[in-house]
Amino acid sequence: MNSCRFCDRLSDRTETILENDLCVFLQKEEAVLIGSGLIIPRAHRETVFDLTAAEWTALYDIIHQAKTMLDQTYHPDGYNLGWNCGAIGGQHVFHAHLHIIPRYKNEPHAGKGIRYWLSQDENKRK
Amino acid sequence: MNSCRFCDRLSDRTETILENDLCVFLQKEEAVLIGSGLIIPRAHRETVFDLTAAEWTALYDIIHQAKTMLDQTYHPDGYNLGWNCGAIGGQHVFHAHLHIIPRYKNEPHAGKGIRYWLSQDENKRK
Repeated sequence: MNSCRFCDRLSDRTETILENDLCVFLQKEEAVLIGSGLIIPRAHRETVFDLTAAEWTALYDIIHQAKTMLDQTYHPDGYNLGWNCGAIGGQHVFHAHLHIIPRYKNEPHAGKGIRYWLSQDENKRK
Repeated sequence: MNSCRFCDRLSDRTETILENDLCVFLQKEEAVLIGSGLIIPRAHRETVFDLTAAEWTALYDIIHQAKTMLDQTYHPDGYNLGWNCGAIGGQHVFHAHLHIIPRYKNEPHAGKGIRYWLSQDENKRK
């Protein structure tokens, strides 16, 4: 049986911050991205494209709940939300996870979004 | 009346690649991120958190249609999907837009995801 780090984390109830029938919001301590977390489906799905329609729909409420909680706790000035798909896309655990990243005006990279570095000339394909 | 660049782009039918009742996938020519595009709601919503539940649900089919089209046209090795929210989060046009970014193994930044640069020590808050 293959093991999955996120299937394992689902069974560690101390990490669960928010949950519904189909998905869970998890947080762990972060050195830089304070308050960031992950929304993952309870079922093992490899990428965002493998979520069922019901799992996709279930994200809506938990995203709003997560924002409410993060706003109250960390008072961020913005957010990034997104998925990496495939090892080339920067996915390291192959259980789909939506990154929720609070952003702050006193970050050195404030104002730079998820596309910024990827879109620079230095990333032109060989 | 305030103008919105994306509301204007919705009326330029040459840019529309895929569409349904509530949202549209747009592409323009890109220097580096070949094949990348945006899914935006037809209605003006400021950030992803302002989408209605119906608009959120409508994303599911169009994301899969976009992947099918992009896979066939560009043969990428991975994807990033995500939203920047707020100017501090890197949002420049305040009409919510889901970035769909095909990723390729021959990119210099292959393997680096949306969180990579933001999570480095150099982005620690002051």
